[in-house]
Amino acid sequence: MNPRLEAIPGSLIRELNARKRPEHVDLGLGEPLLLPDASLLAEAAAWAAESGCRYGPNAGLPEPRAAVASYLGDVAPDRVILTNGSQEAIFLAIKTVCDPARHEVLVVEPAYPLYRKIAQLEGIACRSVACEAASDFAFDPAAILAEVTPATRLIVVCSPCNPTGRIAGAAILGALAAGLERLSDPPYVLMDEAYRELYYTPEAPPRMQAFYSRTLVAGSLSKSNALTGLRLGWLLAPEDFAPLATKVHQFLLTSANVVGQRVAQLLLERALLGAHRPHYARQRAAFEEALRAHGLAFVPPEGAFYALVRLPPRLAGDSIAAARALVDEGGVVAIPGRAFGACAEGFLRCSFVAAPPALAAGAKRIAGFVA
Amino acid sequence: MNPRLEAIPGSLIRELNARKRPEHVDLGLGEPLLLPDASLLAEAAAWAAESGCRYGPNAGLPEPRAAVASYLGDVAPDRVILTNGSQEAIFLAIKTVCDPARHEVLVVEPAYPLYRKIAQLEGIACRSVACEAASDFAFDPAAILAEVTPATRLIVVCSPCNPTGRIAGAAILGALAAGLERLSDPPYVLMDEAYRELYYTPEAPPRMQAFYSRTLVAGSLSKSNALTGLRLGWLLAPEDFAPLATKVHQFLLTSANVVGQRVAQLLLERALLGAHRPHYARQRAAFEEALRAHGLAFVPPEGAFYALVRLPPRLAGDSIAAARALVDEGGVVAIPGRAFGACAEGFLRCSFVAAPPALAAGAKRIAGFVA
Repeated sequence: MNPRLEAIPGSLIRELNARKRPEHVDLGLGEPLLLPDASLLAEAAAWAAESGCRYGPNAGLPEPRAAVASYLGDVAPDRVILTNGSQEAIFLAIKTVCDPARHEVLVVEPAYPLYRKIAQLEGIACRSVACEAASDFAFDPAAILAEVTPATRLIVVCSPCNPTGRIAGAAILGALAAGLERLSDPPYVLMDEAYRELYYTPEAPPRMQAFYSRTLVAGSLSKSNALTGLRLGWLLAPEDFAPLATKVHQFLLTSANVVGQRVAQLLLERALLGAHRPHYARQRAAFEEALRAHGLAFVPPEGAFYALVRLPPRLAGDSIAAARALVDEGGVVAIPGRAFGACAEGFLRCSFVAAPPALAAGAKRIAGFVA
Repeated sequence: MNPRLEAIPGSLIRELNARKRPEHVDLGLGEPLLLPDASLLAEAAAWAAESGCRYGPNAGLPEPRAAVASYLGDVAPDRVILTNGSQEAIFLAIKTVCDPARHEVLVVEPAYPLYRKIAQLEGIACRSVACEAASDFAFDPAAILAEVTPATRLIVVCSPCNPTGRIAGAAILGALAAGLERLSDPPYVLMDEAYRELYYTPEAPPRMQAFYSRTLVAGSLSKSNALTGLRLGWLLAPEDFAPLATKVHQFLLTSANVVGQRVAQLLLERALLGAHRPHYARQRAAFEEALRAHGLAFVPPEGAFYALVRLPPRLAGDSIAAARALVDEGGVVAIPGRAFGACAEGFLRCSFVAAPPALAAGAKRIAGFVA
């Protein structure tokens, strides 16, 4: 069997979630609890039934591709591939852009653990560069640039960030782009924008592709519109990579499902991608209030639906042990910071998708547990 | 970029299809033209809207997995992974079971070209073994067994076969299983059952997993129920491989879409997978009649919706050139046999999904072209 596969460690997030019992408060959740827009699903299903639920082009049907291309800043539609969620877009980017024999992926941490695992599965070297807890995990272009080597082929940045909630602003992206442009063989940047529509800053997150031509973008309807199960995302690739990424996509799974493609088209044409943003802004306010009320320190989220809650010094050295004990003794599921990289040790990732009473109860229980 | 990717040749099927003009008769189609069952799509969409369109487990929701497990011969549900079509199931099987450093895939040809391309993409050696035109491409277990070496890890068989329409009967599967069992380290067999429900034999195709424990099965709703765009398939894997294949599946794309999962559950629970079989039996009869009326020799299909039509000696040496000329001069799209392996040289794959008048016109035009 595939020896690389056996070497990849299991999921800490899954392990924590598996400990959950019905009486627990679940702040480990990584997906919306909202119901999706029923009328859009019905409309898309009726369309598929009437027009025939056919393959369509591998990269996606023309109308939804065009809608995504417009959303991504009026890019050429043939640079867009509709995917089975942003997960597939990330996989395609890593698999297409890198030559395992000579390239490495550089992950900006704290980060979603699967970037590294995909690189492992594909036999591609992977290093990480840390955002620092001391600066509340702000993105640091100088630190990222300092870690780039001639082997660095792809830099992975998630903004709004899972798990920190931080957003890479225009000054940060501009500085990163300028630094990369100065290199003799500039690497590519993969922006994971799964949480793009969930921002609490005055302006929407800036787009790396506006600063830097060697940008790939992974996006999705999953988090913005409570459609994680629909599996509809997209990859934006530079012109020379799009046909190659489409080839991988075809060999992997032919195409994304057309019901999801149609839902994406309708959501984008009707400008509904930000429909749930006010809800999460209220959720964020409720959770921050609860955390403050119980004296818990945290990284104020600018986007996504997570807050990193700081463990007291007594527990900060082993967030995995703390998270296990918090579930079993404190009755709260939260994800250890360590799962997202060494630099997030000493924190717990708490999502604020649960109902406000649960958020309040969770904060209270965490405060009791760490006391 | 990924150097293996660049080395994989383009698609002959796509090239032929790209030559199509509106006035042509299209016998190149590899998917149903029927409309799917609208009520099932509506029901599944309503379910997803009401219950929340959530991730669910990576391998699939419990109810559709159980329904597929029951359909596959009451296998354990935890051996079933719901996939983005049978394409993903094939990819998962090859990627999980083989170690590129020491294993090879053996493809029973004529065969769908993507088995080999997936192996190429994954850096896995691939050889083929031919079914012979002289026996109308009947599956030949002795010929397959003769090609197995200690490196052979996975044998890929498609039955009902694209492109031959032949079915591997119980005697064939039994002999293959018995021969493999005698080996010291028996290889696995991947059965591609994308066309399983479209059979014209008195009995349904036998199941390799009933004969041989080292069997993987790739299946799908696409062809049986005119749902190619829904992207819902499944992989049956032996107990020890299912968790590893699920890991690959998770890294690739998280999970299959839940609307498709629900449609699969409803179709299976209501025993509707064979609903379109009578339609294709009529289509087959119409096409066979047209081919015979025009004196064209062909391999009588036992399943799927293709017939291999024999080229006359003058054209049989280069089916690619013949297919190109047939489109441009004869006005019929058909796929050169050569696209499915050297042993299918001298034939054209003609699908019989088009309306009977088109099938009749296609046969007439082919006869005129080859005359």
